[in-house]
Amino acid sequence: MTLNYHKEIMTSHPWTFFKLLFNWKSSVWKAVSVELLVWLIIYAILSVIYRTALADWQMRSFENVVLWFENRMSYFPLDLVLGFYIKLNVERWEYRYRRIGYIDNPCLMVAEYVRGHSEMGRQFRRTIIRYCALGQIMIFRDISLRCRRRFPTLDSIVQQGFMTEAEKMEFERYNIHYKQWICFNWAYALVYEARKRGLIKSDIFTKEVVDQLKEFRTDLEWCNNYDWQPIPLLYSHVVCLAVHFYFAIALIARQHVISEDNPNKIQIDIYFPLMPALQFVFYIGWMKIAEMMINPFGEDDDDWEVNALIDRNINMGMAIVDGGFDRPPELRKDPFWD
Amino acid sequence: MTLNYHKEIMTSHPWTFFKLLFNWKSSVWKAVSVELLVWLIIYAILSVIYRTALADWQMRSFENVVLWFENRMSYFPLDLVLGFYIKLNVERWEYRYRRIGYIDNPCLMVAEYVRGHSEMGRQFRRTIIRYCALGQIMIFRDISLRCRRRFPTLDSIVQQGFMTEAEKMEFERYNIHYKQWICFNWAYALVYEARKRGLIKSDIFTKEVVDQLKEFRTDLEWCNNYDWQPIPLLYSHVVCLAVHFYFAIALIARQHVISEDNPNKIQIDIYFPLMPALQFVFYIGWMKIAEMMINPFGEDDDDWEVNALIDRNINMGMAIVDGGFDRPPELRKDPFWD
Amino acid sequence: MTLNYHKEIMTSHPWTFFKLLFNWKSSVWKAVSVELLVWLIIYAILSVIYRTALADWQMRSFENVVLWFENRMSYFPLDLVLGFYIKLNVERWEYRYRRIGYIDNPCLMVAEYVRGHSEMGRQFRRTIIRYCALGQIMIFRDISLRCRRRFPTLDSIVQQGFMTEAEKMEFERYNIHYKQWICFNWAYALVYEARKRGLIKSDIFTKEVVDQLKEFRTDLEWCNNYDWQPIPLLYSHVVCLAVHFYFAIALIARQHVISEDNPNKIQIDIYFPLMPALQFVFYIGWMKIAEMMINPFGEDDDDWEVNALIDRNINMGMAIVDGGFDRPPELRKDPFWD
Amino acid sequence: MTLNYHKEIMTSHPWTFFKLLFNWKSSVWKAVSVELLVWLIIYAILSVIYRTALADWQMRSFENVVLWFENRMSYFPLDLVLGFYIKLNVERWEYRYRRIGYIDNPCLMVAEYVRGHSEMGRQFRRTIIRYCALGQIMIFRDISLRCRRRFPTLDSIVQQGFMTEAEKMEFERYNIHYKQWICFNWAYALVYEARKRGLIKSDIFTKEVVDQLKEFRTDLEWCNNYDWQPIPLLYSHVVCLAVHFYFAIALIARQHVISEDNPNKIQIDIYFPLMPALQFVFYIGWMKIAEMMINPFGEDDDDWEVNALIDRNINMGMAIVDGGFDRPPELRKDPFWD
Amino acid sequence: MTLNYHKEIMTSHPWTFFKLLFNWKSSVWKAVSVELLVWLIIYAILSVIYRTALADWQMRSFENVVLWFENRMSYFPLDLVLGFYIKLNVERWEYRYRRIGYIDNPCLMVAEYVRGHSEMGRQFRRTIIRYCALGQIMIFRDISLRCRRRFPTLDSIVQQGFMTEAEKMEFERYNIHYKQWICFNWAYALVYEARKRGLIKSDIFTKEVVDQLKEFRTDLEWCNNYDWQPIPLLYSHVVCLAVHFYFAIALIARQHVISEDNPNKIQIDIYFPLMPALQFVFYIGWMKIAEMMINPFGEDDDDWEVNALIDRNINMGMAIVDGGFDRPPELRKDPFWD
Repeated sequence: MTLNYHKEIMTSHPWTFFKLLFNWKSSVWKAVSVELLVWLIIYAILSVIYRTALADWQMRSFENVVLWFENRMSYFPLDLVLGFYIKLNVERWEYRYRRIGYIDNPCLMVAEYVRGHSEMGRQFRRTIIRYCALGQIMIFRDISLRCRRRFPTLDSIVQQGFMTEAEKMEFERYNIHYKQWICFNWAYALVYEARKRGLIKSDIFTKEVVDQLKEFRTDLEWCNNYDWQPIPLLYSHVVCLAVHFYFAIALIARQHVISEDNPNKIQIDIYFPLMPALQFVFYIGWMKIAEMMINPFGEDDDDWEVNALIDRNINMGMAIVDGGFDRPPELRKDPFWD
Repeated sequence: MTLNYHKEIMTSHPWTFFKLLFNWKSSVWKAVSVELLVWLIIYAILSVIYRTALADWQMRSFENVVLWFENRMSYFPLDLVLGFYIKLNVERWEYRYRRIGYIDNPCLMVAEYVRGHSEMGRQFRRTIIRYCALGQIMIFRDISLRCRRRFPTLDSIVQQGFMTEAEKMEFERYNIHYKQWICFNWAYALVYEARKRGLIKSDIFTKEVVDQLKEFRTDLEWCNNYDWQPIPLLYSHVVCLAVHFYFAIALIARQHVISEDNPNKIQIDIYFPLMPALQFVFYIGWMKIAEMMINPFGEDDDDWEVNALIDRNINMGMAIVDGGFDRPPELRKDPFWD
Repeated sequence: MTLNYHKEIMTSHPWTFFKLLFNWKSSVWKAVSVELLVWLIIYAILSVIYRTALADWQMRSFENVVLWFENRMSYFPLDLVLGFYIKLNVERWEYRYRRIGYIDNPCLMVAEYVRGHSEMGRQFRRTIIRYCALGQIMIFRDISLRCRRRFPTLDSIVQQGFMTEAEKMEFERYNIHYKQWICFNWAYALVYEARKRGLIKSDIFTKEVVDQLKEFRTDLEWCNNYDWQPIPLLYSHVVCLAVHFYFAIALIARQHVISEDNPNKIQIDIYFPLMPALQFVFYIGWMKIAEMMINPFGEDDDDWEVNALIDRNINMGMAIVDGGFDRPPELRKDPFWD
Repeated sequence: MTLNYHKEIMTSHPWTFFKLLFNWKSSVWKAVSVELLVWLIIYAILSVIYRTALADWQMRSFENVVLWFENRMSYFPLDLVLGFYIKLNVERWEYRYRRIGYIDNPCLMVAEYVRGHSEMGRQFRRTIIRYCALGQIMIFRDISLRCRRRFPTLDSIVQQGFMTEAEKMEFERYNIHYKQWICFNWAYALVYEARKRGLIKSDIFTKEVVDQLKEFRTDLEWCNNYDWQPIPLLYSHVVCLAVHFYFAIALIARQHVISEDNPNKIQIDIYFPLMPALQFVFYIGWMKIAEMMINPFGEDDDDWEVNALIDRNINMGMAIVDGGFDRPPELRKDPFWD
Repeated sequence: MTLNYHKEIMTSHPWTFFKLLFNWKSSVWKAVSVELLVWLIIYAILSVIYRTALADWQMRSFENVVLWFENRMSYFPLDLVLGFYIKLNVERWEYRYRRIGYIDNPCLMVAEYVRGHSEMGRQFRRTIIRYCALGQIMIFRDISLRCRRRFPTLDSIVQQGFMTEAEKMEFERYNIHYKQWICFNWAYALVYEARKRGLIKSDIFTKEVVDQLKEFRTDLEWCNNYDWQPIPLLYSHVVCLAVHFYFAIALIARQHVISEDNPNKIQIDIYFPLMPALQFVFYIGWMKIAEMMINPFGEDDDDWEVNALIDRNINMGMAIVDGGFDRPPELRKDPFWD
């Protein structure tokens, strides 16, 4: 789940962000640790070979290679390409978050317009909302690994109460590849039925309820459509290639040159490539942001907790349309009354 | 079709993007292979001439030319201009994707509001949706090469069942250049007729169905309008020119200078221009993103599969408005009922 | 008219953009040809004077001036300022394009809701749409040179059939500076009248028709409002100044220095300033994009063909509301029927 | 008022933008003239002191200071920070312009739905629109200096006819700090009254009129809310600080170093700091764009002419709802009739 | 509260922004003072040690370290990453500001459509609005420290009059984790009740009132949802890390090198690191913008005054729906009447 760190940074102190640096979960340290280790090991191996195993003329050659590469590191404009690429990923990430399907409005509208304290009224309201939650599950199963794990089969959905056995059988009777719309079709049909039975008092109210369900479904549909149509691979490819080649070459280009007469001999030999390593952390960490945001329905630390959302939706939904239905406190003069 | 690689990157591992590098389809390798080969061959020819065929003073002159060009390579600000240009192309690409015409909402609304299990009811619902799909085909034929190939003539549309022979004749009787609206006009007329016959129970519902069709049509219209009004050629021209001239000049400027007394003599002669070649791959690959996104209705690997969308729309549409019409499971107490 | 080059780049080949380079119309070559010529001539004159007319100490001084300027060329951050400026212009260009006034939706809604095959019904529908087209002309006359040329006077509008003589007299009777709303007011009044006479069956439908006309008018109004309130001149001024001063100074700074003992003596004297000229083409071409997009209602090659749009609107409009009114093919079982 | 230069750049000629350079009003020359003068004077004073008043060892020290500063000028990334800052200001400027309150739609809807040629009908329509204009004045008085100058007191509003004496008294009877809503509340009440008296024929039409007034008011409210919540001062502070410090330091860093043996001795002493001065014009001019756009309701040359807008709104409003009410030309066959 | 400095910069003078520099509250000076001090102290300590405590060969080593770091400072692309990061934060900040919940429209719509001067009418209107304000408090308590401080318990809400004792008891009877929707459910129920009792005359008007409440609630919900799902920590982490490491390394890299024979010996030793300190102020100040905007519901100087908004909403709300209800001035001929 996305780490919520807003509380810790409520007020900006000099040490506010500083504290964040000592966070492990969803930190840059965790994100790049493995890569960094591998990179450092290869770097070390190359370094040891260069310093100990090579003959003099080989060292000279190697140093010339280092020099040649180092002078050409600027050929890769990592900054700009990463900046634009991450901006694009952030925008798509936000676009989907706004469409992730909070069920509040459908529930409140169903509670407002589908009336009746009778058992029938309650059944209508509860079932319409349950079908919405079910539709959300059906869509999330296709795009989210976490949701798929929780609901590997239709039976598991039945087991957790989102679906009855009868509904499952009805659902399976449809002989078509795309089935995400079925639950919503049921919900719509119930709304129309509710209008016919007089639970909804007017056509305008019917349309309003239908509109809310439609908005909910359309939002989810676009989560699905965006999953179906990712950023063209070519774009990710170019960015990923540039970053990886940059640091592959850096393995050589950033070696400390130690021969006295080499023009780019380092000033002091501190063995550990501190600055290149920090650059590695920084750029690879930057790229990891994109990697993490490109599919927020995965299982990364910062990916969305869709299962928690499903539970929240069903609990809150039932509370709104049933438990809290039409129970306003008695009207009295309010405290500001003059 | 756009390669869907979301599944493979569900969770971010150190090797996640690494795997993507060994993808051929829609990879940067495939995108730039031909250009790279041509560029390398010309580079090699120049290199061989310079190293073997030139007299001493000619070499000296050539090396001065190399030096002169190399010092001025920074005159071209490729990064920024490519960054902004690609951002623009991505935005227009997304704008069109959001308007590509998923038929779900029109179908669900038609199923909700156009009632009747009778054959007449079924015919109305099916035909309204079929006209929508037909309208989509008519528009896609104008902008998508793939769709045009599938439906080269009206007869081919009739053959594949999207149009009857009678409709084709009616369609051909219109004597006007712009014909994309005709099918939608038919669909609207059917909706009005359905209201008159009482299949739609209220004016509000009529308006709602019309609104859905309108939204569907307007989305498609803007796919068409964007095709009609591309990014001004001048913009593409400037970007394309800059990139191509940059690498044309690089053919000379990036030659390895080997004369001892030349100030920019290379440190070590590795013959193969590794870094310039990588730069070539990177920048040309970057530009290819724009080239591919500028017209997503073409036939590139990553262009949209409009034919698959058309099939999905008609199959799912028929299932929603006919097969799945008004078949909600019986109302029962749900498993959460207390 | 904007050159439509989508067809030519349907599929991305290695030579796709290459072909575009040999386009003259709306090419960068055409856009910068005059400026480039002037710039090269001045450059040549300066060059000739420097090489032939100056005494030795004058040459020395001149070369020092060249050196002084060249070292300070980086004071102007052209890239970023041009990048942001062009992005802004592109956004405003797209904003207006989306509001340029395609009449499809008003027509389709008028055809849907204003009923009657009688002559009265036809007159109402035709006249409402004609008033919309007329309103568009009235607005375009204020902002587009092309439209103004086609319709220099009200008489010319009458002559081309968009207005009757009686309407012109009525129009002229209004004694107010702003007259763009008049035709739309007429159209609205007709819609209300149609409702009173029963051509429109319900208040909801009336509102729907009015809403479509309103959307059409509001779009056009914002084309007009954006024309009234351009990007503040100061912004254009700063950008334009920076680019022009840059290349004015480049006339001196990019001169080939030929004295042996000057530190920035060129490596080889190729007389023609190839790289500075390419830079000139590139930057001036980039700036031209903005110049062209800042007012797309002008008469540049890539400016919008508003007259073609007006013709399309009236032709298609009449076809939709009259020729194609309420003529759906007979309902039959469709080919997919099982 | 914003200078409208669209007409002058209708078509793009080589000299198009060139002409703009010789504009004084809202030109960059005018914007930076005072600052530039002050800067040049201080520069000159420092220069004179350095060249004439200092002893040799003092000159040496001063030159070292110059060198020290010049080498560190790149510490300030002015370009990017200005670029992003101006982009933000432009966006907020456009956001507010789109909400500045053109009264066209409210008027047209009032004219469409509030019927009656009687004096009562006319009074209703005129008064509703006048209250809208009045509400606009009330809001603009809070945020625009120009509007405040024109209407310093309620009496001045009465005097100019936007308010009657009775309305002023009623207005003053409200005992609350926020009063911007009052006129709109009156307008709404009149609409409801008009419905009750039958001037509006249906509830749907009532809602439509109310919606238009609501949109108009909400737009204005956001002009107000944006004024209440500017870009955090910190942001403006950082940008402004960076630019000013940069040029304060440039006063020293850009001095011409004239001692023979100094490593950054200038090549030629042209006394006038031409390039630094141009850089000053360019950057300060760029920053002035933000300064001007940050509050477009001020009194700068390019700030919005809200008073002209108020006059336009009331004149056009009255013409639409009264003079031009329900006066469509007689229906006849149009010229395109076949 | 956000400092409103629009009034002071109404018109752009040369000294406009200059004045802002001498502002303490929400100035960059205040924002970075502590950090700057700490940084300078550590810098001074290092400097003193280097200059006094080290042996000659130690100095030489230290200077080599300085040189090594300084040459690699460009590894961190702070500008671009900060630019994009701040842009993102600004966008999210604006997104939330537009959804912060101004109650004007709900109030005006309730006053328009819920009729009756009777006590019952007044109670309905007042209570609906009070429940909206109460719902806003409930949401703000979860996300804003200031609001939480003002309303630490439900009792404190009762005490300040936003809730009655009875409502509190009813509120507490709900046995569910998410309770933000309850007040809105009450408000909706009252609207429906008002329709049943005839205070609202039509279903269309009912829908309109419900829509306004819905919009108000949805806006607030998204303030909440954005708080629940911040920018992934990884992103903040990378940015924060880059900036802090940059200046940590600058502590060494920016030391004045004083040994005569060191290649980067400073030109003149002014002891105080003026330029590095300014750079520190600038970049840390820039980062503080993000820090401040990332959670505008905190207690920073520039964070939003939600408590003032709550008070404004309830005061203005009561005035609109009760004090100012249906009190339009008598209709008379207006001053423009001819």
